[in-house]
Amino acid sequence: MAPAHSTPAPALAPAFGWLGEQRRAREAAGLVRTLRPRPADSPLLDLASNDYLGLARHPETVAGAVEAARRWGGGATGSRLVTGTTELHAELERELAEFCGFEAALVLSSGYAANLAAVTALAPNGSLIVSDAANHASLIDGCRLSRAATRVVPHADPAAVRAALGAHDGPAVVVSDSVFSVDGDRAPLTELGAVAREFGAGLIVDDAHGLGVLGAGGRGAPHAAGLAGDPGTVATVTLSKSFGSQGGAVLGPAPVIEHLVNTARTFIFDTGLAPAAAGAALAALRLLRREPRRAARAREVAATLHQLLTDEGLSAVRPDAAVVSVRAPSPDEAVRWAAACRAAGLAVGCFRPPSVPDGVSRLRLTARADLTDEQLAEAVRVIGRTAPRGAVSAGSR
Amino acid sequence: MAPAHSTPAPALAPAFGWLGEQRRAREAAGLVRTLRPRPADSPLLDLASNDYLGLARHPETVAGAVEAARRWGGGATGSRLVTGTTELHAELERELAEFCGFEAALVLSSGYAANLAAVTALAPNGSLIVSDAANHASLIDGCRLSRAATRVVPHADPAAVRAALGAHDGPAVVVSDSVFSVDGDRAPLTELGAVAREFGAGLIVDDAHGLGVLGAGGRGAPHAAGLAGDPGTVATVTLSKSFGSQGGAVLGPAPVIEHLVNTARTFIFDTGLAPAAAGAALAALRLLRREPRRAARAREVAATLHQLLTDEGLSAVRPDAAVVSVRAPSPDEAVRWAAACRAAGLAVGCFRPPSVPDGVSRLRLTARADLTDEQLAEAVRVIGRTAPRGAVSAGSR
Ligand SMILES: Cc1ncc(COP(=O)(O)O)c(C=O)c1O
Ligand SMILES: Cc1ncc(COP(=O)(O)O)c(C=O)c1O
Repeated sequence: MAPAHSTPAPALAPAFGWLGEQRRAREAAGLVRTLRPRPADSPLLDLASNDYLGLARHPETVAGAVEAARRWGGGATGSRLVTGTTELHAELERELAEFCGFEAALVLSSGYAANLAAVTALAPNGSLIVSDAANHASLIDGCRLSRAATRVVPHADPAAVRAALGAHDGPAVVVSDSVFSVDGDRAPLTELGAVAREFGAGLIVDDAHGLGVLGAGGRGAPHAAGLAGDPGTVATVTLSKSFGSQGGAVLGPAPVIEHLVNTARTFIFDTGLAPAAAGAALAALRLLRREPRRAARAREVAATLHQLLTDEGLSAVRPDAAVVSVRAPSPDEAVRWAAACRAAGLAVGCFRPPSVPDGVSRLRLTARADLTDEQLAEAVRVIGRTAPRGAVSAGSR
Repeated sequence: MAPAHSTPAPALAPAFGWLGEQRRAREAAGLVRTLRPRPADSPLLDLASNDYLGLARHPETVAGAVEAARRWGGGATGSRLVTGTTELHAELERELAEFCGFEAALVLSSGYAANLAAVTALAPNGSLIVSDAANHASLIDGCRLSRAATRVVPHADPAAVRAALGAHDGPAVVVSDSVFSVDGDRAPLTELGAVAREFGAGLIVDDAHGLGVLGAGGRGAPHAAGLAGDPGTVATVTLSKSFGSQGGAVLGPAPVIEHLVNTARTFIFDTGLAPAAAGAALAALRLLRREPRRAARAREVAATLHQLLTDEGLSAVRPDAAVVSVRAPSPDEAVRWAAACRAAGLAVGCFRPPSVPDGVSRLRLTARADLTDEQLAEAVRVIGRTAPRGAVSAGSR
């Protein structure tokens, strides 16, 4: 019998007949994903977005988008190499590089595109990529697209990186998230930087979840680790999380950026970032410069959240940045848990296979600098009350 | 001696030492690319952007961006599967699918991401991709990322597609641009659709340069070829060209879209399109529905441009849509030609290796629906006057 949540399978053309079987397998495994459009005035308490600094709807961010759209239009109108570079893009690149402590920056249409650009352009044929097993999908796709050999090493393991680099002759890059997107734990960046330098390898750090949260005033994880401006280090960032906008950037030495301008396919063959997104990100960056406390507050909120969850007997990973991950007993229970939270007015992320590297389903909570202590307490009450039996350790509650 | 345009090479870390040699090779070959930020009030006559309908700075497009940013904020704040789907995204998807004649649509952060999503999700392990040799970089990267075997066939050659499909057993997709981005020529879509159907293969059409220009009222090349809504056909589009915004979409049967929601990495692991970009694209789409003549006007402008160029003795490809390509004798001369046009007040695209599949450098001109006949005459006067000797056929001028 079909599971209760199954809908009648629509007819498929012969060409796509094979999709039906995958659909049935997803349904049987409780792994069907559906889109749930949200209204502009959602009453839910949001612990699911990546809007770490609460800037996506801040009046200054919105004004940045509005003014840019008015001044420059709805789109960049072409590749950055043709008509798609406005003075606004150049301004954003200058201020972003300066803020994060790098010589130069290159803005792309997404963080995903920035990672594809950095990895493919800096790992040529014959070179080696040493990639952390828990890296983000966009870094993994960068490895797959590059002509280099990829060696996947165990998560957060500088000794394994050292062994991989020692066994290779020729150009190499070490590639790692700074803060891992699923569990929110931090990479051993200082050690990775030292190992890379020792072997004359480059280091590419994806700081998607570090920018705005880690480092002095939110300057990011490479800055915190003393790697900003290091001639062998390249960082990628997104403008879509702490900066409440869309887009990504690669930060590094000027010759590396010049190399990307000339060779990175997701830069050359892609339309430039929309002016409104560039304007929103620039406004958020300037706001953060003026109010550097926001970064520390995001970390503080995460620490409080973790403490409260632990007090409830839930298994939460101690956060290194603004992501707090809570283990669920199974994909099905994770989905039911998240749904129960939603029914009680709380939006939480629900990560299931294949979006989790280890197959363990989780609720993924995000700290935001603008959450109050009362909101945190209420959120954890809801999460605790709706927790499946297997998620709470004995002795609690 | 270093060439005149060479700048002193900055110091490179050992990790990136290999970049220096590539830089020197680019300089020696006259293939250095640099970014030229444009001001908001550029006095140049623009025949370089992909703003085919002249909508990027249209007040309605801008108002669409502004209202969306005000209502929804600067960013989507998360993956479309978490917090990144707003009612605005759903509205855009509904209207876009209806306009183009497909059952369903899925909006992604760029056309590049849409192509990666469509190709990787619809070409599983063990399947075959039959790909036109002149396809866009994003389709090629989709082939590289997929687990399928890729067979590259000669440009616009349905017989070669037929041979490739005939030699394969199991799922297959035929992948082609509708209008090729470099020369602006059209794919034989009707024939490709028939061959694909005959072999039970899928057809993926990248309509980046067809949407807004081809088909009734700009409904796109698949619509013009009778393939819109065909159960074996999937189209990808960009919102960054005719719609004057940013973003991309995949259009197709509902079960195919549902499959992408569940499996496409550039959809699942990417932040949703910024609200301002969705709003701008939706406004442009509604404007085009109200003023369908804009599509025909873009084609008319292209035809006029081609005629005037040919009258000047220049070698221009007869345009099937809004792109008009003019051959240049060499990369160096193409660059000098484009620079001379610019000095005379005209912005044109300049495509050189490695951005051209056949190694032939070109000026790439784009027709815009809002160009006047006087502007076209002036543009062609400038192009003719600045043409390198080898670009003009004997007997002309
Ligand atoms: C670690 C990491 N890198 C890169 C990205 C991609 O960034 P964007 O969504 O801006 O494309 C994400 C999330 O989306 C991420 O979590
Ligand atoms: C044929 C074609 N497909 C896809 C793309 C990518 O679209 P986008 O720039 O919106 O990412 C482009 C150009 O940029 C293109 O010319």
